Amino acid sequence: MPQLSLDALNAASDAEFATALGDIFEHAPWVAAAAARRRPFSDLEALLHAMTQAVRDAAAERQRALISGHPDLAGKAARAGDLTAASRAEQGAAGLDRLTDEQYETFHRLNAAYRAKFAMPFIICVRRHTKESILAQFERRLAGEPAQEQGAALEEIFRIAALRLDERVSAPDRLKVHGRLSTHVLDTRAGRPAAGIPVELAEIGENERRVVARAVTNADGRTDQPLIAGRPLPIGRYELSFQVAAYFVAQRAPLPDPPFLDTIPLRFAVAEPEGHYHVPLLVTPWSFATYRGS
Amino acid sequence: MPQLSLDALNAASDAEFATALGDIFEHAPWVAAAAARRRPFSDLEALLHAMTQAVRDAAAERQRALISGHPDLAGKAARAGDLTAASRAEQGAAGLDRLTDEQYETFHRLNAAYRAKFAMPFIICVRRHTKESILAQFERRLAGEPAQEQGAALEEIFRIAALRLDERVSAPDRLKVHGRLSTHVLDTRAGRPAAGIPVELAEIGENERRVVARAVTNADGRTDQPLIAGRPLPIGRYELSFQVAAYFVAQRAPLPDPPFLDTIPLRFAVAEPEGHYHVPLLVTPWSFATYRGS
Amino acid sequence: MPQLSLDALNAASDAEFATALGDIFEHAPWVAAAAARRRPFSDLEALLHAMTQAVRDAAAERQRALISGHPDLAGKAARAGDLTAASRAEQGAAGLDRLTDEQYETFHRLNAAYRAKFAMPFIICVRRHTKESILAQFERRLAGEPAQEQGAALEEIFRIAALRLDERVSAPDRLKVHGRLSTHVLDTRAGRPAAGIPVELAEIGENERRVVARAVTNADGRTDQPLIAGRPLPIGRYELSFQVAAYFVAQRAPLPDPPFLDTIPLRFAVAEPEGHYHVPLLVTPWSFATYRGS
Amino acid sequence: MPQLSLDALNAASDAEFATALGDIFEHAPWVAAAAARRRPFSDLEALLHAMTQAVRDAAAERQRALISGHPDLAGKAARAGDLTAASRAEQGAAGLDRLTDEQYETFHRLNAAYRAKFAMPFIICVRRHTKESILAQFERRLAGEPAQEQGAALEEIFRIAALRLDERVSAPDRLKVHGRLSTHVLDTRAGRPAAGIPVELAEIGENERRVVARAVTNADGRTDQPLIAGRPLPIGRYELSFQVAAYFVAQRAPLPDPPFLDTIPLRFAVAEPEGHYHVPLLVTPWSFATYRGS
Repeated sequence: MPQLSLDALNAASDAEFATALGDIFEHAPWVAAAAARRRPFSDLEALLHAMTQAVRDAAAERQRALISGHPDLAGKAARAGDLTAASRAEQGAAGLDRLTDEQYETFHRLNAAYRAKFAMPFIICVRRHTKESILAQFERRLAGEPAQEQGAALEEIFRIAALRLDERVSAPDRLKVHGRLSTHVLDTRAGRPAAGIPVELAEIGENERRVVARAVTNADGRTDQPLIAGRPLPIGRYELSFQVAAYFVAQRAPLPDPPFLDTIPLRFAVAEPEGHYHVPLLVTPWSFATYRGS
Repeated sequence: MPQLSLDALNAASDAEFATALGDIFEHAPWVAAAAARRRPFSDLEALLHAMTQAVRDAAAERQRALISGHPDLAGKAARAGDLTAASRAEQGAAGLDRLTDEQYETFHRLNAAYRAKFAMPFIICVRRHTKESILAQFERRLAGEPAQEQGAALEEIFRIAALRLDERVSAPDRLKVHGRLSTHVLDTRAGRPAAGIPVELAEIGENERRVVARAVTNADGRTDQPLIAGRPLPIGRYELSFQVAAYFVAQRAPLPDPPFLDTIPLRFAVAEPEGHYHVPLLVTPWSFATYRGS
Repeated sequence: MPQLSLDALNAASDAEFATALGDIFEHAPWVAAAAARRRPFSDLEALLHAMTQAVRDAAAERQRALISGHPDLAGKAARAGDLTAASRAEQGAAGLDRLTDEQYETFHRLNAAYRAKFAMPFIICVRRHTKESILAQFERRLAGEPAQEQGAALEEIFRIAALRLDERVSAPDRLKVHGRLSTHVLDTRAGRPAAGIPVELAEIGENERRVVARAVTNADGRTDQPLIAGRPLPIGRYELSFQVAAYFVAQRAPLPDPPFLDTIPLRFAVAEPEGHYHVPLLVTPWSFATYRGS
Repeated sequence: MPQLSLDALNAASDAEFATALGDIFEHAPWVAAAAARRRPFSDLEALLHAMTQAVRDAAAERQRALISGHPDLAGKAARAGDLTAASRAEQGAAGLDRLTDEQYETFHRLNAAYRAKFAMPFIICVRRHTKESILAQFERRLAGEPAQEQGAALEEIFRIAALRLDERVSAPDRLKVHGRLSTHVLDTRAGRPAAGIPVELAEIGENERRVVARAVTNADGRTDQPLIAGRPLPIGRYELSFQVAAYFVAQRAPLPDPPFLDTIPLRFAVAEPEGHYHVPLLVTPWSFATYRGS
């Protein structure tokens, strides 16, 4: 679906508006219809607020229906191809479309237990998570209280809506729904940025390692693009690895055989999907350091 | 075989001496017999020197026989259990007794190629190597010249002899045949040693990860014993990993969920089997550094 | 004198052009007059090149006169107020207008020795230097050969001209005559930028310490403006100091009395006046690190 | 006075014992006399405990007399040469025998104010302090309550006694009255200890800088002796400085002129006189780091 400008949405008829944003909330076009009457919106934040307020103001029955309209995570609907396009893309990004049989069973068991306890599907904004952190959240929320869980489900629905809105509507000010993961390599032996270092970012699961970005450092020791940007950083564990030995050979640094440092892995975890994680490497052939920078 | 003192060896008859050290050089008791006549020895170094000098002074034919008396690495003799006790223990320490079929085939191919080119077995002091570095040396030396290889084989035989002698004979001054690998964890958030951190050292192969030491840091942030000591450090790649998140939780440091740093791996390689590798970790919940220390 | 645009200079009459830029080269309006005939200039670099080329193409006699037209550093003309406005400002920036009697004597002695050996004044682009590095250069060049020194004097005159031109003429592309000195404070105890840290930059001489910039770190741990920018970084020694104890007290970090770290000085030297020196501080209450960054 | 062994003291007559230790508590031989009756002592700690317990058990009048028997710090007795040998040595070590007139006036004023408020002299174990920290303690305790101050005075008297006892009596187990300050320089460019680096330790006062130790690093990058050992570390501020540029020139590291790093000062403070402060330097020509180590 093409991007629409906020100005065009402000100028559209109520019906056009409701059509354009009818699927921001899953199977709940009434949310967009309610928001249409609050126009004009000065920015995306105001539009989002009108939509979430419409949900908060809705009758309990309607809220429950909104929640129930969401599919199970990695559930039968997903296997059968019965998801909305948005849900399919979201679940796929987190790797829920390529589960092992064992993982599928785990989801199946958790979905059943959650429905049994709370009489609603487990809802989570999957684009803010890795498969591993979805499972961790699932276990944690399954242990929660019904009253809390209703609130938690709505919060996750609002996060999903914010991301869909951010993609659908163009406006000068953006919603704060994206994070950023960047790096920088400094050769502290020579006192300058280390150029030409291959860098790899991988998501680390229990028994998995999935490469999510590859780059080579430029003349300033940075990658031309952030390793992740323009989307939330999935909560989870990562390994950033740097191939430094070939660089130091090219710098004519005397190295033993094998070199003391060759591919340097830095393991860390992301806990704030909307945060900026700057993870630099200060390196000589015999030492290295890293830290969460800014 | 029990340890003998250097004093006792100096006082023994020539025959007793030759019997006691007859197997220091594989299938070559004549080396000990020749050294017996050079007694007394003031220290182990002098004894070793007398034995290596006896080899250097021997006729070319005898040197060649000494070399040819060595078994193939991971060869048929090993599979058939036809090795001397010393050779069996040495090859086992480097993991040559638990090769996959593919690795066995590689050794078989290299042994054959080496014998075809140099008309002698490939000799290397396996206790100074990991499986990976043995293969790297094998490929490298296979590309060498016959004259060099004869010298290289003798050098390796002398290294094997030095290690056997160090085990067999007790003396106040030791031979410099051992390395040391140690670590130290400093909590730079609190300015004190980090006690109670689980540490694991693993040897890293192409597709393998073999844990070679486990320890927990003591009140001084060190391990009670060095991670490796009393033997050469096998040339190869290692990963030292530290579980720091539980430590910082116990210190009541505020941590995100998941913590930015949890298990920290440090990858490095050993190139000097007789060297001292001190690989410390300076760590806060948000940063870490390492270096080759002393 | 107001800034002129390169466009206006390209459009002016030869006489207007020569008047406008007549003092870029000290007492040598003929340089501007010669360059006027090479117009139009696409950028400042081209204009500067035309002027320096006019000097290089001039007869030896005229070059010598250009050199001799420069005043002594910290000489009688300076004390008597007989300098051109540009020279006065330049010598003042390096502190040559506030010498002790002893320093004045040193300059007097060096000026006399230099004139006696080379029959010309000692010329150096003082804005690229501190008093200390001017003296170091003076001693070094006094030991040089006449042929080299003539070339060295012209190179310094070209550097002086480039800086004057950069100030006098506005154009889209600037000459590369400026450096930059910046810092950044990261609290690696808490994994975030350290805001509110007072920072002081001082120039360090033999027996002097002259504060050249003061700032407080902002929310990103940086100073709102670089500590030095928009001019060359004077070659010399510096001390950057950071008051960290009050910051950590405010963060409720447990500190001993007195705190292990309070005001942290970082000493370093600048050797490239047109370079970028980024000198960050990574700090906890018990550790700190710095490096030349980018 | 020569050292006595604890065994000899245990075997001596009561009178000999009291004579030998009569001046451990200033002008209060009765303390030693009381302790003599508690013999034998298994170690120094037990002997010290017997003496402090004798003071604690004494009548209030006698405690007050003990306190009043101490001289003013940097007072008239000091100027007139009327101190006991022990007091003179102790006050001299903290520099109280070489005050400026202004500092003398400050002590005079504080002594008078303290006596006016508490009717006793200000007592502090000066060997655990620098001049600066004595003044800081003086101001702080002057603001205290009489009941607390009586206790504080006795605690300081016990510290003085412990140090005197440690010097006077030899025994296998020592009292824990000494600290240690050490350093270590690691060249992280080359991955080895930096040998031959001149190191200087200075005590830093308001307007003073007093060098207290000089050394050169040995082959292991350490100084042959700790910079301070065998005595308490005076509470106060210090600067440890390292001359690294000449070292890197000798290592043939390419350096700019002037070098980015030359003499590196590390400023820190000591707060625990009986602690171990290990302050290492990790250094390349372009970076350095330090931390409180162990």
